[in-house]
Amino acid sequence: MRKHNFNSGPSVLPKEVLEQASEAIINFNGINLSLLEIGHRTNWFVDVIEESKLLVKELMQLNNNYEVLFLHGGATTQFMQVPLNLLNENETAAYCDNGIWGSKAISEAKIFGKVNVIASSKDQNYNYIPKSFTLPDNTKYLHLTSNNTVEGTQWHQFPETTIPIVADMSSDIFSRQLNFNQFQLIYAGAQKNMGAAGVSLVVIDKNILGKVSRQISPILDYRKHIEAASLLNTPPVFAIYVALLTLRWIKKEGGLAEMENRANKKSSLLYNTIDSLPLFECAIKKEDRSKMNAVFCIKEEVLQNKFLEECKEEGMIGVKGYRTVGGLRVSMYNALSLESVEAITMLMKNFANKYS
Amino acid sequence: MRKHNFNSGPSVLPKEVLEQASEAIINFNGINLSLLEIGHRTNWFVDVIEESKLLVKELMQLNNNYEVLFLHGGATTQFMQVPLNLLNENETAAYCDNGIWGSKAISEAKIFGKVNVIASSKDQNYNYIPKSFTLPDNTKYLHLTSNNTVEGTQWHQFPETTIPIVADMSSDIFSRQLNFNQFQLIYAGAQKNMGAAGVSLVVIDKNILGKVSRQISPILDYRKHIEAASLLNTPPVFAIYVALLTLRWIKKEGGLAEMENRANKKSSLLYNTIDSLPLFECAIKKEDRSKMNAVFCIKEEVLQNKFLEECKEEGMIGVKGYRTVGGLRVSMYNALSLESVEAITMLMKNFANKYS
Repeated sequence: MRKHNFNSGPSVLPKEVLEQASEAIINFNGINLSLLEIGHRTNWFVDVIEESKLLVKELMQLNNNYEVLFLHGGATTQFMQVPLNLLNENETAAYCDNGIWGSKAISEAKIFGKVNVIASSKDQNYNYIPKSFTLPDNTKYLHLTSNNTVEGTQWHQFPETTIPIVADMSSDIFSRQLNFNQFQLIYAGAQKNMGAAGVSLVVIDKNILGKVSRQISPILDYRKHIEAASLLNTPPVFAIYVALLTLRWIKKEGGLAEMENRANKKSSLLYNTIDSLPLFECAIKKEDRSKMNAVFCIKEEVLQNKFLEECKEEGMIGVKGYRTVGGLRVSMYNALSLESVEAITMLMKNFANKYS
Repeated sequence: MRKHNFNSGPSVLPKEVLEQASEAIINFNGINLSLLEIGHRTNWFVDVIEESKLLVKELMQLNNNYEVLFLHGGATTQFMQVPLNLLNENETAAYCDNGIWGSKAISEAKIFGKVNVIASSKDQNYNYIPKSFTLPDNTKYLHLTSNNTVEGTQWHQFPETTIPIVADMSSDIFSRQLNFNQFQLIYAGAQKNMGAAGVSLVVIDKNILGKVSRQISPILDYRKHIEAASLLNTPPVFAIYVALLTLRWIKKEGGLAEMENRANKKSSLLYNTIDSLPLFECAIKKEDRSKMNAVFCIKEEVLQNKFLEECKEEGMIGVKGYRTVGGLRVSMYNALSLESVEAITMLMKNFANKYS
């Protein structure tokens, strides 16, 4: 039985991506060598990274100011690399504190410069996105987390400002159509909508670089990675290849318009079910609910383990809330089928019938 | 035809490791989920990382002062992370300049503190290991590259000193028996003797940590990774699993004693062939020759492309020297069979017969 995988990341991937990745470990592109055994400067691999970059540019409709990088590490590495590259010690960046990951990004930025926490929803357990705030003129950049994986909120409209926006899109990249050219830097760990853990996508408007005075280690300097076309050192070959396979799959399925369409269908079904069943509750403000990660709970807390047991019996995994938050969480990334959401909503209805 | 893979890294891996990794992409440990789809905090993955650590400790016979980490990035990241964690601005570290990678490590260290280049073989094109030098008392640590992948030299005896030794063992880790407890920090990118690109092994005597005054970003702080047992952020799951499979294979085949035995046989055969054929030449001082990477050339340079063509016809790849060095290079990592070395030495003899 193939499981219903509601993991928050690493998470479900398209079956054909897994099959192609598995085959490439034995015989990459029919060359009788494993993907893991080829040099990263061979045409075989340079073709992989170049096609990946082109697909990112095409899917996101980026203009020519943007560079696309695939870097070692996850978004947590970017929490450090962003201020290291963009913020001088005496300068101020504005950060939105909308969840656990944004708050970690804030701690990191404070090591490198001044941080102005421009908006926070911490007082309400991060159950909404605070959207009205003023950015002082001297703000170097505005940092936000487009989707809060742990708390289940998502920015559905972004601030209009001439100040550069840096967005952590780890958990909703490639899930919807946006004007991506409104951001000057976008980063995302790959292990949700873009493939396997071990690589991050970084998209940068190159005009924002080269403006800090500190000496940056080459391996942490975006400019060095741009010069070297993501081959500054041995890149995470396998994770980049899985990203390529996933990007190809997204394009083939209909691109971001279709991903958005599917996310709308899946998340509507789930939230409508939650809202229609008095046993379940979603504390997130309706207009800010995430279409990737639905965070909710069972009002009668004693029933929660029972529900998780029933999920397990039905082959559903990843339904438990984040370890510091509790409750339930259903992640609905691109590769999750509508059938999986139908299955869990059916289970919820039956469960509510039994226990209400 | 399975190729003879003399790549310098990423490089040849054991066939059974590739088969098991390929299977895990489809169905990990028979759980009906892909390795790429499971959470990194599940018991499934925690078991992988814990077994990997135990195998490293066992194979290297490390005492209890040591911590084993699997970190994002390659050795180039460690060039930065080592001085960041170990060297204050006003302190001095000694570095051996024995090749291109050691020299990059020196540039990085200069960003964080003072560097005393204690020994260099640059004047002789890095064709030997300078072994006699004095370490000033105030030296914070001594950094060396145990095997120079590009130049084809290797340390066969290490300095005896009470000053902590930091060794980049990227290209000869797990290839020989050593008293690993004589080093206070060992790091290695995985993509040569330990698996796939995208993860580094870091082995640290924890007593050397916590002695710098700068604020270190958590994601770059060895202590934070130790506290979090290599799960500070989402780790490179797949690359760690391939490392586990490779470590299991090394143990099953007979451990480091057997790897050393095989390296001795393969490298003797190759160097004896080079030395016996006047057409070929190895410029590396005999006592410092690497058992992992043999760097040599054809005296009549016009014949070199012809030789590389014949290699290609015989299914031999990776024989071309490093892009800045030229000549020929045959890498003989653990997973390279003696048959492959026999094949290329046979080709060399035939070639010499034809063209001498």
